[in-house]
Formats: sequence, structure tokens, C-alpha cells
Amino acid sequence: MAITMYDLAGVEADRRFSPFCWRARMALAHKGLEVETVPWRFTEKDKLPTPNDGRVPVIVDGGKVVHDSSAIADYLDERYPERPVLFSGSAARGLSKFVQNWTETVLQVGLIRLVLLDIYNHIGPGDQAYFRQSRESRFGMTLEEFAKDREARLPVFRASLDPLRRTVERQPFVCGDAPAYADYIVFGAFQWARAISDFALVAPDDPIYAWRGRMLDLYGGLARKSPAYGG
Amino acid sequence: MAITMYDLAGVEADRRFSPFCWRARMALAHKGLEVETVPWRFTEKDKLPTPNDGRVPVIVDGGKVVHDSSAIADYLDERYPERPVLFSGSAARGLSKFVQNWTETVLQVGLIRLVLLDIYNHIGPGDQAYFRQSRESRFGMTLEEFAKDREARLPVFRASLDPLRRTVERQPFVCGDAPAYADYIVFGAFQWARAISDFALVAPDDPIYAWRGRMLDLYGGLARKSPAYGG
Repeated sequence: MAITMYDLAGVEADRRFSPFCWRARMALAHKGLEVETVPWRFTEKDKLPTPNDGRVPVIVDGGKVVHDSSAIADYLDERYPERPVLFSGSAARGLSKFVQNWTETVLQVGLIRLVLLDIYNHIGPGDQAYFRQSRESRFGMTLEEFAKDREARLPVFRASLDPLRRTVERQPFVCGDAPAYADYIVFGAFQWARAISDFALVAPDDPIYAWRGRMLDLYGGLARKSPAYGG
Repeated sequence: MAITMYDLAGVEADRRFSPFCWRARMALAHKGLEVETVPWRFTEKDKLPTPNDGRVPVIVDGGKVVHDSSAIADYLDERYPERPVLFSGSAARGLSKFVQNWTETVLQVGLIRLVLLDIYNHIGPGDQAYFRQSRESRFGMTLEEFAKDREARLPVFRASLDPLRRTVERQPFVCGDAPAYADYIVFGAFQWARAISDFALVAPDDPIYAWRGRMLDLYGGLARKSPAYGG
């Protein structure tokens, strides 16, 4: 029986833009597991399976409900150890946490100021009020103030990607010769941006652009086929 | 027979301050290999073993000469696979490169502006002219200009350590439950600063400070025993 995954969606049900859901989606593909995704919107908290913590991704595998992208990755390796591993041992898991923490404190923090207004413009009208209120409260300013001058901020953002750039310039994937969970963590952030914004985050001659292309090609072009505004 | 390692030294022969040499030194200790270090100064290029590329670390193991900290780490795992591994598989090696690239593009770049003048003041008078000339040419300004206002730069430096901070706040080492090569890469930068400067890079209540303490305790306090200006 296919695993069910609740996945954040835009106005169109097939536009999936949560970086955390993309981590889980790519992890399921890496394991070669069949999945049926259920499009879900910010305001549909009561439509999630029980126990319900009000957020996605959530997967249901048989009777088992697993919340949170990190817990899902751990669950998949534990439940399906005979399939390709997301973490090849405890050091790889530990090191993937460093990549996750870089992604969440540098990459996603930089990205959100560049694409926030595009997200707002592309989610359903029913979600816009929730999104504006929750984000303006989190950032302490209006969405428009938070997102302004993105062209001027772009060089600093691109420079902040140096650790990633140098890595994928010298080896095909963050995890070396083959992709694994840390690649999906970083890629989730780019796929989030791509689904929701046409803003050029990296230049076409950037090694990160080429790496992103390799990620888009994985698993029969799974991520490339997903609706996107970005290239 | 012990491995010989050429190790960058200050005025006192036992003050060892190269971040790259510290990577190799900790890697040798991790493997449980006996080592004799040879103190070496920037200007003693003709005293290195052949083939000689003019830099340290270099190790001599039996008749084999290995240059460069990364090559030394790979060599040690290949030559001594039965001893504790520095990289537990190809994904751990690939992920360690990400940590290395973060260390070299963020941590070490931030550190050098904070400790550069201290390095200059603590190396031998014979090396000061070489150091000043080579660094002023690299940075395009005097050492004094490059290093000024370090108190004002400290908050930005500390914020740039967020990926490391969050990692070692949630697990004991960069590599998870036990230290491995990526820990030595990051630690090499801190040990470099500690050997040469008393400037407080991180506050005592910073999770990074506690992690550094765990690193200083490893292998009978190997790194803690090395002469230091910092705490």
C-alpha cells in the first residue's frame, strides 16, 4: 500500500512549495517507496491525520502517522533498512544536521526575504490573510517592508552560499558522489523558491545552478515536473 | 616506527598554530598512531622532506611522504583501515567537505581578521617580515588596517557561527555522538586562534565553547596541553 503524504499546496493543488515537504518527498523517492500526496493548505489544520500537530509534512504508512521531515527521514531508514539509505551511519546523520542547520540559519533565512512576496501572491486568497498576519507578526514588519530591495540584497545572499558552491563545484552532490538526505535538505529550500517565484537566485554559470539541475533530474525528473515559476 | 609530522611553530618550538596542522595532528591521535612532530617555521622551506611543496602539514610514514591535511586524512584511513575511521563511508567524506568549505569560507575568514595581529606579534622576528609582506599582499592593506575594530566585528562573527552553534547545542560533536574528521577541521581553526591570541571568540555560555572544551579534552588533553594564549 502506498504511503500517504500531506503536502503543502498553492492555489493550484499540484503546486507544492514547502521546503520541509520537499525534503520528505525526495526522501521517499530516494527509498523507492510509492507515495500518494494529499494537497493541503495552511488553513486546513483539521484535515490532517491524528495525532495532529497542525503542520506538514505528515506521512501515514499503514496505520503509522509520522510528523516532521527529520522524524520522517529517520523513520524511513529504520523501517526500510534494506532500501537505499538516507544516512549511511551515525556520522553521516550527525553531519547532515550541520547541513540542515546551515540551510535553516543561512540559506532559508536569506531566501525568504527574496521570495516572500511571491509566496504571498501565489497562495490561495483564503490563505493570504493567515499568511500575512502570521508572517508580519513573526518578522515585526509588513510583508512589503520585509521583502523590499531584493536586487540590492542579492550579492550578499549569493556570497552566503559559498560553502555550498565550493562543495558542489568539487563533487557532484553535497553527500559526495551520490545524493542523500543532506542534498534533499538543501534542495528543499531551492525547490520552495522555484515553485513560487521566478526570481533568479543563482546565475546560470554558478556551480549551484548545475547541482540544482542534477537534483531536478533525479527520480525521473520528479522535482522538475512539479509546477514552477522559476527555471 | 612513529610517523613524523612537520608542524608550524611560533617563537617557542612547542607553540603550534596552523589550523591545517591541527587537523592532521588530531587525525593522527584519532587513529591512535604514534607521532613525532618537527617544529617548522614559514621561512624554513628547505628543511621539509622531498618531494617538498614548501608547506605544512607533511607527514613521513616509513618512506612515504604525504602533503596536505586532506590528503593526510584520506591516506590514514586507507593505510590504517582497521583503526578508528576519520570518514565512515563516502557520504561522511562528502559531507565533511561541506563542513570544510564552511570552515574555510566563513569561520577562518572571520577569524583571521580577529587574530591576525596577534599572530604577527607572536611569531619569531625572523618570520615577521615574511608574514607581513605575504599577508599585506594577499589582503591589499596593512596588517593594522585589516585587523582594526575587532570588537565591533565580533557580533557579526559570532552570528556567522550559527550553523555550528545549533549543531553542537543538539549533539555532542559535529559528527554526532563521537568526534571524527569534520570536528577536527572546525576545531583546527579554534586551536589556531587559541595558540596565538587571547581574544574571546565565543562567550563561556555559548554551546560552541562547551564543544571546544570537549575537543580540548580528547586524547588525554592533547590540544589543551599545547601552549596557548587563549583559555
